[in-house]
Amino acid sequence: MNTPEDSGMQCPRPIAEYPRVLLAHGGGGRLMHELIERIFISAFGAIELSARHDGAVVNLDTGRLAFTTDSYVVHPLFFPGGDIGMLAVNGTVNDLAMCGARPLVLSAAFILEEGLPVETLENIAHSMRRAADGAAVRIVTGDTKVVERGKGHGVFITTSGVGIIEHDLVIAPSSVRPGDTIIQSGDIGRHGIAIIAVREGLAFETTIESDCAPLAEPVMRLLNAGVEVHCLRDLTRGGLASALVEIAETSRLSIALDEQVIPVREDVRGACELFGFDPLYVANEGRFVAFVPSRDTERALAILRGVPVSAEAQVIGTVADGNPGLVTIKSVIGGERLVDMPSGEQLPRIC
Amino acid sequence: MNTPEDSGMQCPRPIAEYPRVLLAHGGGGRLMHELIERIFISAFGAIELSARHDGAVVNLDTGRLAFTTDSYVVHPLFFPGGDIGMLAVNGTVNDLAMCGARPLVLSAAFILEEGLPVETLENIAHSMRRAADGAAVRIVTGDTKVVERGKGHGVFITTSGVGIIEHDLVIAPSSVRPGDTIIQSGDIGRHGIAIIAVREGLAFETTIESDCAPLAEPVMRLLNAGVEVHCLRDLTRGGLASALVEIAETSRLSIALDEQVIPVREDVRGACELFGFDPLYVANEGRFVAFVPSRDTERALAILRGVPVSAEAQVIGTVADGNPGLVTIKSVIGGERLVDMPSGEQLPRIC
Repeated sequence: MNTPEDSGMQCPRPIAEYPRVLLAHGGGGRLMHELIERIFISAFGAIELSARHDGAVVNLDTGRLAFTTDSYVVHPLFFPGGDIGMLAVNGTVNDLAMCGARPLVLSAAFILEEGLPVETLENIAHSMRRAADGAAVRIVTGDTKVVERGKGHGVFITTSGVGIIEHDLVIAPSSVRPGDTIIQSGDIGRHGIAIIAVREGLAFETTIESDCAPLAEPVMRLLNAGVEVHCLRDLTRGGLASALVEIAETSRLSIALDEQVIPVREDVRGACELFGFDPLYVANEGRFVAFVPSRDTERALAILRGVPVSAEAQVIGTVADGNPGLVTIKSVIGGERLVDMPSGEQLPRIC
Repeated sequence: MNTPEDSGMQCPRPIAEYPRVLLAHGGGGRLMHELIERIFISAFGAIELSARHDGAVVNLDTGRLAFTTDSYVVHPLFFPGGDIGMLAVNGTVNDLAMCGARPLVLSAAFILEEGLPVETLENIAHSMRRAADGAAVRIVTGDTKVVERGKGHGVFITTSGVGIIEHDLVIAPSSVRPGDTIIQSGDIGRHGIAIIAVREGLAFETTIESDCAPLAEPVMRLLNAGVEVHCLRDLTRGGLASALVEIAETSRLSIALDEQVIPVREDVRGACELFGFDPLYVANEGRFVAFVPSRDTERALAILRGVPVSAEAQVIGTVADGNPGLVTIKSVIGGERLVDMPSGEQLPRIC
C-alpha cells in the first residue's frame, strides 16, 4: 500500500478513494474488479465486458467466435514448471477454452526492455512455439516494441486469441442454474506457490512446479460428448475463491463448497502454511471449474478423468438459489465459513 | 547504442552480433526486421508471419478473418493531436484495414505502473472509447496487469483486432505487380514530429499535431467500389521508406518514387530540417499507401479524395520489374538516390 492514509484501515476502501494505481489493482481481487468496472466497463460500454467472462463471444453472420487477450508480466521470467512464454500461450488458450471455443490462432506482442539478452528472448519464443504446438494453435501475427532500460522489466508479452464455437450452448456465469454441480479439474495452488518459492529463494524437499498447462482438450471432450456445460472458469489470479465469488455474484446465486474434497497437494498445503496463504486464493495456470447440471455430473467426471491434465477432477460443491453472491465452505472440521473475494494484495505479478 | 564495440562502426552489423536488445530493435527498421526474422518467424514458423503483413488473414470454413495486434508504448502518453489510447485504437483499426478487412471488434490489455494516477487511466479509456466510436468498432474484451514502480512506464496498451474480409482479393506484398501505381493518402511526417517536438520541449509557430486517424473508411470505399487493390500499408514506425523497402523486398520488385509530389507540410519540413530527419523516415499514424493497377488509378484517387482523411491523396510512384527490393527516388532537383531501410535508431517509442 502506498497511500499514507491507508494505514490502520479496517475495511477495503472504494477505489474512488485511491487516486493512484496500486499493485493490488492487478491482483485479481476486489480492487481489480472495481478498477475494471469503474474505468473500463464504464468507458467502453460493450455488453460483452459486463458479462465478466474470460473472453468475448462475437456473433458473425456465419457463426460464433471467441476473442480474448491477456498481458503476461510474471516475474521471474523462468520458474519451476514453466516460463512467461509458455504461460502466455497456455493462458490465452485456456481463456478461449473457458468460452467453450476451440482455440484457432494466437497473436503475440512483445514489450522488451533495452538490454534484455537476445538469448533469453530466443528461449522464450521457442517455449511459446512448443506450447502452441502442444495446444494445437498457431501464432500467426505479432508485434515488437522496445522501451528504455528501467522503463520495463525484461519482457512483457500480450497474447490474444481467436477460437471457434462449434456448439449452441451459452457458456457464461449467466447460464449457471440452482442445483448445478461444480467440478474442479485437479489440485490447486501449485502455480502461485512455485512463483513465490523461487522469488523468496526457498527450496522445499521436492521442487513445487507450476501447473501451467493447456485446458482446451478436456473442455472440447466435454462439449463433444454433449455435456450441457453451463459455465467454465480457469483459476488464475485470485484463485478458486475469486473465480467462484465472481460467478456467484454475476449469476446472483449462492455456492456451497466442501473443503475436504478440494484437492491440494501436501507440499503445497505445507508451503501455504509457511507463507500464510489460503490455497483457495492462490493462482493456478492449468486448473478450471466446470458448472454442469447434476444429471451430467458422473459423465463429466468420467470424461475429465480420462484426460491427463484433469485426471484428478472432483465435485467440490453445488449451486443454490437465494443469498445471491454468497460463497460458503464447509471446513474439514465441520464448521462453515464465508469465502470472500481477496482485495488483491496477496501475490502480484504471478501471471 | 549500448554495446561499446559499436562505436565507430561504418555498416550496420548483423543482429547475431548483438547479444542484447537495443532500443533500435524497436524502431521499425532493419534491426527490428532482423530480430523478428531471427527470433520470432524462426520459432513460430507460421506462414502468415513470413508474409510480412500488418496482420494475419485467417481462413475459416465460412469466410476469411483478419487478425492483428500491436503494443503501444508511446512516450509521452498525451501529445498534440492524440494520446496513447487513441493511438492504440486507431493503430489496430488501421492494421485491419491494411489487410482489406472491415474492423469488427478490438481487445485492450493494459500494463499499468504502480502509482499511475487513476484519472490519467480514466482519460485514456475515454479517449479509446471515442476513437472506437469514430472507427465503428467495439472494445469487447480486455485485461489489466500492474507492475511495480520503475518496472513499467505509466501505461502500456496492447490492442488486438478482428475484422471481416468481404471480398476475394489477396491484399499483400505478394500481390504487387510491375506497372502498379503507388498512391499515398496524404502528407507525411506529422505524428513523429509532434512526438519529438513535445519530448524536446520545442514549440513552433503553430503546433504540429499528430495525424493519428482511423483509415478503414477510405479503404472500405476503394474495395466497395471494386478497385483491384493489390497491397495496402500504413506508414507507421520507419515511415514511408521502411514500408516501401519492405514491400519491394517481399514482392521482389523495384519501386521508383518522385520526391516532388510526396506531400509534406511546410512546418513539418522545417522541423525535419531542424532535427536532421528525412520526412520519408518519420512515423505517421493516419497515412497509408495503396498499390493499384494503373487502369484503376484515376478512380482510386477520386474515391480517396472524397474522404476527409485521404483528401490529399497523390500518386507518388510506380512499381517495375527487375532490381528486386530496390527503391529509388527522383529528388526535387532531378537527381536519383537510393531509399534504404533505416537501421531503427531514429525515433524510438513514437508508437
